[in-house]
Amino acid sequence: MNKETLGGVCAAQGFKAVGIHCGVRPNKSKNDLAIIFSEAECAAAGLFTTNKVKAAPVQLDIETVKGGRARAIAANSGNANACAPEGMENALRMRAALAKALGIPESEALVSSTGVIGQRLNIEAIEAGLPAAISVLTHDPDGSDAAATAIMTTDTKKKEFALEFTVSGKTAVIGGIAKGSGMIHPNMGTMLCYLTTDCAVSPEMLKKALKAACAVTFNRISVDGDTSTNDSLILLANGLAGNSIIAADGDDFNTFLAALTELCTKLARAMAADGEGAKHLITCAVSGAEDDRDAETLSKSVVSSTLLKAAIFGCDANWGRVLCALGYSGVAFDPGKVDVCFQSAGGDVQVCAHGMGRAFDETLAKKVLSEPEVEILVSVGAGGGSAVCWGCDLTYDYVKINGDYRT
Amino acid sequence: MNKETLGGVCAAQGFKAVGIHCGVRPNKSKNDLAIIFSEAECAAAGLFTTNKVKAAPVQLDIETVKGGRARAIAANSGNANACAPEGMENALRMRAALAKALGIPESEALVSSTGVIGQRLNIEAIEAGLPAAISVLTHDPDGSDAAATAIMTTDTKKKEFALEFTVSGKTAVIGGIAKGSGMIHPNMGTMLCYLTTDCAVSPEMLKKALKAACAVTFNRISVDGDTSTNDSLILLANGLAGNSIIAADGDDFNTFLAALTELCTKLARAMAADGEGAKHLITCAVSGAEDDRDAETLSKSVVSSTLLKAAIFGCDANWGRVLCALGYSGVAFDPGKVDVCFQSAGGDVQVCAHGMGRAFDETLAKKVLSEPEVEILVSVGAGGGSAVCWGCDLTYDYVKINGDYRT
Repeated sequence: MNKETLGGVCAAQGFKAVGIHCGVRPNKSKNDLAIIFSEAECAAAGLFTTNKVKAAPVQLDIETVKGGRARAIAANSGNANACAPEGMENALRMRAALAKALGIPESEALVSSTGVIGQRLNIEAIEAGLPAAISVLTHDPDGSDAAATAIMTTDTKKKEFALEFTVSGKTAVIGGIAKGSGMIHPNMGTMLCYLTTDCAVSPEMLKKALKAACAVTFNRISVDGDTSTNDSLILLANGLAGNSIIAADGDDFNTFLAALTELCTKLARAMAADGEGAKHLITCAVSGAEDDRDAETLSKSVVSSTLLKAAIFGCDANWGRVLCALGYSGVAFDPGKVDVCFQSAGGDVQVCAHGMGRAFDETLAKKVLSEPEVEILVSVGAGGGSAVCWGCDLTYDYVKINGDYRT
Repeated sequence: MNKETLGGVCAAQGFKAVGIHCGVRPNKSKNDLAIIFSEAECAAAGLFTTNKVKAAPVQLDIETVKGGRARAIAANSGNANACAPEGMENALRMRAALAKALGIPESEALVSSTGVIGQRLNIEAIEAGLPAAISVLTHDPDGSDAAATAIMTTDTKKKEFALEFTVSGKTAVIGGIAKGSGMIHPNMGTMLCYLTTDCAVSPEMLKKALKAACAVTFNRISVDGDTSTNDSLILLANGLAGNSIIAADGDDFNTFLAALTELCTKLARAMAADGEGAKHLITCAVSGAEDDRDAETLSKSVVSSTLLKAAIFGCDANWGRVLCALGYSGVAFDPGKVDVCFQSAGGDVQVCAHGMGRAFDETLAKKVLSEPEVEILVSVGAGGGSAVCWGCDLTYDYVKINGDYRT
């Protein structure tokens, strides 16, 4: 556990950010354009949606991060620029405008969009707004706050964290902002997440760390099983902490990876907890599986089960749905060895032992499940594999939000 | 298209059925025990859940149908007898009681249970009720009606159809009843389906036909992505139609398979349309894929998308979610070649051509999507593969029904 600090993407030395309303959204009270910029050159790594339908800006960024360098990000909300008329043309215009306004090469400029699919992006509004936005970039925490707000869509809470850690005797900082509320599923839902650090890391090791951290955090959350066209997770490292550059495996890499994973865990949990309409964060910890991979598959199946999600919304200890979700996950296990326990700040209640229902106190179970954070502890045998995944309950509000998102 | 007739599982010669209240459910106004019986010996085939957690009666029936013979089915609602204390013991008692009351060998008696998981089955109520039920077995359509009602759980409509067809110059009949409303997903959700025919078919060809029909009907519907512990699809054929027995491929087999597939399509569509809380039956027809398998995967991905389901509930022509669901299905295709059209009794509206949004009449789109049956026509290219899958919308009522199912 590293020390939390303030400032999100502006917490690390040399990073500035801003969020403004430029006009992509009609509603002027909602910011719709965020910019993140590093004063110094950066190593960069990125992970993007696995969806075959990729938004134009995602297609661009995938090429950009291959170079291992980038130092600025512009992201708009209100329009995904996916399957949209003039999509690639407008993504290129957005990138050119960002690079020009900051005086950096286009090869170091990243662009993201999030919002409705299939409608033309108002690129003119972005081009007009960019210079004004850049003139008010700030290293102050307010800059990160404004950027975090500008990328929100149906999110109800801003997602912003930063941590301090020590590497080769130097204090380094890593921070980030994220958005993501619907279309969230293992292998990244509609999430945008930007991470910045002043730790010096080579592009290769940065990518290695990002993949490892993402695998056990963002790839372990599910809101609704939909994986979007726009997911982007980007990490910039400008080296201003002054540590000896991390260019190989070793203690320094492990220290950096631990801080990165801790930060990503905080952001991933915040996303699951803020799932569209969610009233409960659901954590499912599976142990006793053959290996970690099996445990992850079992755990994901539980947090993704529509029926289990609806039961948690109803604070109903319907553990049969946990057994059922384990059973259709595709992983082999002995149903006769399964134990299930519900746990929260309200207490804990074992509902199933050796695959059979146990008599339990329904009043206590209701109390346990009424807490905003609920853990489902599952043991499937005596194996050494374990994994934790996160999700949220399915509520009336999810249906309401998504029944009428576009109009 | 064969001629529809009345009588469900009692439509074919020699079959009787009944449904009564025996006491598994506390509510006396809801039948909870169904029996289906053939006066003559039958060839039998069955397909069962792929869930690793299998209810005790499913475990029994899997062994029974291996013999290719069975002539009676007892099914209760109100309790799934899955992960339940004394589960196997009580399934064996249910089977013994059924066989004894009908005077048939236990090896020809099938048993099913559906309802809540993890609670002890009230086997005493079933044992006490069976002889009374059997005394009122009838070939009259009322018997099928009562049986269809007795297996319903959260279903709002009875699912019962029958067809007449001609094979080797004889008129044969095939009919069936089904239940299934929640926990419905490709590869059979919580569905129970019993089919009866007086067509003479060998056990081997009966199984072959059932597998082929199931693959393009019940395995192509999705309500919520959950596959239950109790799914059972059983087909009994007593040969009383007097046709020369179908024991090999050929015209007669094809005729039988066509009738069986037509019947299964009707039952599968009825299940999707009656999905828990559903207001719309969604049909997704994909064409132009590499092969039928790819088309099926693409189509299933669309009807299973939580976001698309919520959009249809809101009558919102959010076709971006169709593209998105195609994109994460895992099938390779060129997003630039995708066309999407919404169609119903209210008209049709093309919303996407060559992967791009098209200007369309929002009022017309609303009208099209307001119909109870909505078709989504998707073309992904110039390939010869096509498939149709069925699903339903995600509504407030789904959440309500499943937030508090157990209590």
